[in-house]
Amino acid sequence: MKSFAVTLLIALVASPAAVAQPDPLPSWNDGAAKQAIIAFVHDTTDASSPHFVPRESRIATFDQDGTTWVEHPNYTQLVFCLDRVPALVAKHPELRDVEPFKTVLSGDKAAIAKLTKPDLEKVAAATLSGMTVEQLTAEVKRWITTAKDARWQKLYTQLTYEPMLEVMKYLRASGYQVYIVTGGGQDFVRAYAWGTYGVPPDHVVGTAGAVTYGYAKDGQPILTKDPKVLVNDDNAGKPEAIHLVIGQRPQIAFGNSTGDRQMLEYTTGLSLLVLHDDARREYAYGPALGLPDTKVGTFTQALYDEARRKGWIVISMKSDWNRIFPFEEPGRARLSERQR
Amino acid sequence: MKSFAVTLLIALVASPAAVAQPDPLPSWNDGAAKQAIIAFVHDTTDASSPHFVPRESRIATFDQDGTTWVEHPNYTQLVFCLDRVPALVAKHPELRDVEPFKTVLSGDKAAIAKLTKPDLEKVAAATLSGMTVEQLTAEVKRWITTAKDARWQKLYTQLTYEPMLEVMKYLRASGYQVYIVTGGGQDFVRAYAWGTYGVPPDHVVGTAGAVTYGYAKDGQPILTKDPKVLVNDDNAGKPEAIHLVIGQRPQIAFGNSTGDRQMLEYTTGLSLLVLHDDARREYAYGPALGLPDTKVGTFTQALYDEARRKGWIVISMKSDWNRIFPFEEPGRARLSERQR
Repeated sequence: MKSFAVTLLIALVASPAAVAQPDPLPSWNDGAAKQAIIAFVHDTTDASSPHFVPRESRIATFDQDGTTWVEHPNYTQLVFCLDRVPALVAKHPELRDVEPFKTVLSGDKAAIAKLTKPDLEKVAAATLSGMTVEQLTAEVKRWITTAKDARWQKLYTQLTYEPMLEVMKYLRASGYQVYIVTGGGQDFVRAYAWGTYGVPPDHVVGTAGAVTYGYAKDGQPILTKDPKVLVNDDNAGKPEAIHLVIGQRPQIAFGNSTGDRQMLEYTTGLSLLVLHDDARREYAYGPALGLPDTKVGTFTQALYDEARRKGWIVISMKSDWNRIFPFEEPGRARLSERQR
Repeated sequence: MKSFAVTLLIALVASPAAVAQPDPLPSWNDGAAKQAIIAFVHDTTDASSPHFVPRESRIATFDQDGTTWVEHPNYTQLVFCLDRVPALVAKHPELRDVEPFKTVLSGDKAAIAKLTKPDLEKVAAATLSGMTVEQLTAEVKRWITTAKDARWQKLYTQLTYEPMLEVMKYLRASGYQVYIVTGGGQDFVRAYAWGTYGVPPDHVVGTAGAVTYGYAKDGQPILTKDPKVLVNDDNAGKPEAIHLVIGQRPQIAFGNSTGDRQMLEYTTGLSLLVLHDDARREYAYGPALGLPDTKVGTFTQALYDEARRKGWIVISMKSDWNRIFPFEEPGRARLSERQR
């Protein structure tokens, strides 16, 4: 025991430089993005740096859809809401012949793809309200542990980006509070964020419906979800919600689309944008840099130009990430990268 | 160094029972309240207990006014708002002859005391909005470090309750996340909560006005406070706001008035209420137990009866606390207690 203690002390007093540090971001290729993240962490956590940030103000925010997990061909939460329509109509038969529920029930994929944003908002409001918070959470947990993405035939939570999981871990190990700041529903994301990202419920900032306090038949207190948006956590709503829930400006923020613009602008240190430019391994969409246009996670040329102008980092999935998903073996991914 | 390491290891392996534990709550007299708090902490942090709570779900919530600091004769935030009226009218002269601003400007204490709740809400909305979040924070910081309570001639932050500061510290040392859940303004309380209670901005849940994202003249992003309440953190609004910001039910909660009823009901472990029954050392009001009635922090007989029925702990300031304020010397307070 004595000799262990001595060894421990020697290790503690040894120069940190003498110990080989493992790469905190092994799924990132060496390049401007990886270097910027590592330099930022060193710069804000080294007490002798002019950019040192005290531990209690180290705030990191991550958009979710398209930033930490796949958002194409459709936002995962939307797939969940569409999947819930049959159960909703079973409970409320009067909706069977009412649009947009009628179209969703028809199963006609072409017609469903043509539903407008207000149509989809109606589906979301109806399928995400009218139950208690606990009931919705249980429903999401059941769905998210069984429903599979059509392309990979994997659970949606397996389609998280390994490089981003590494950044979250690296930032937490460096004293940062890691928050998800998503346009997705706060209660939806809370149902799996802890297990998937290590992000607890109070670190999920999302679009939030109002809830109403009341009592179950047995007198127990319950919170019922209302079909009314209280916090719209997108665009300018992101910094507004960050103020409400976090109360400090982020030092570092990650996004991937125009909905993240204001959050990145509100961030005091380093702002980064994921560019989906890898159709082979994931998807390619912009329309920045001539990539195909999309309504799901739009990354415009104007946003790209603004990023360049302001020194925000654009992360190329194709060039910056040697591995995209946790289920890919690191070695194999590197190999296939080299083979291209 | 070797001998220090050995001593350290011996201390680490020594039985914890052999080491005399300092009293975590020295300002509390031995009694049911102190015993309940200590038993609750042991019961929820001992891994072998059937009531063990994992660290990540240890949530403690504290009302502020009347629970962690003095709220009589008037809520501190209201004093701040009334104090700000001259500056507001200087900027908006059109308000000079408009009620309730005219009455506030008159300085007529009897007339000001008669202002209705809607009048006071008008004053609050006008004095807490129209500036950036940073401007309000700076204004609150300036005021809270200079304005003094009339009775004690102390800063308001000196009129916090030492026994509650001890409980907060004790809970944090036991792995609890300590939140303030107040009917007071979130931005108002955030301006001093960190220094006063050790509670950082993301742990202050309060009544929150909407904010609007925009840009200053130099192009820098700013959040401007709107005269519109987004979250009304009182009564049923407390559990609703706890869900929005924290996302887990509290295990332990402290309040002192009817506005805290639902939060205490929503709490899964231990609920406690401070009863102001010490006119000599602080104030006495209820109307529970025949204490004088009040509109500021009402503790009704119905609330008292509910507490008894549900096993909520009623803390008597007179009997349970041997010291009320941090500026009182512990020895002297005990002495004066014995002398009564």
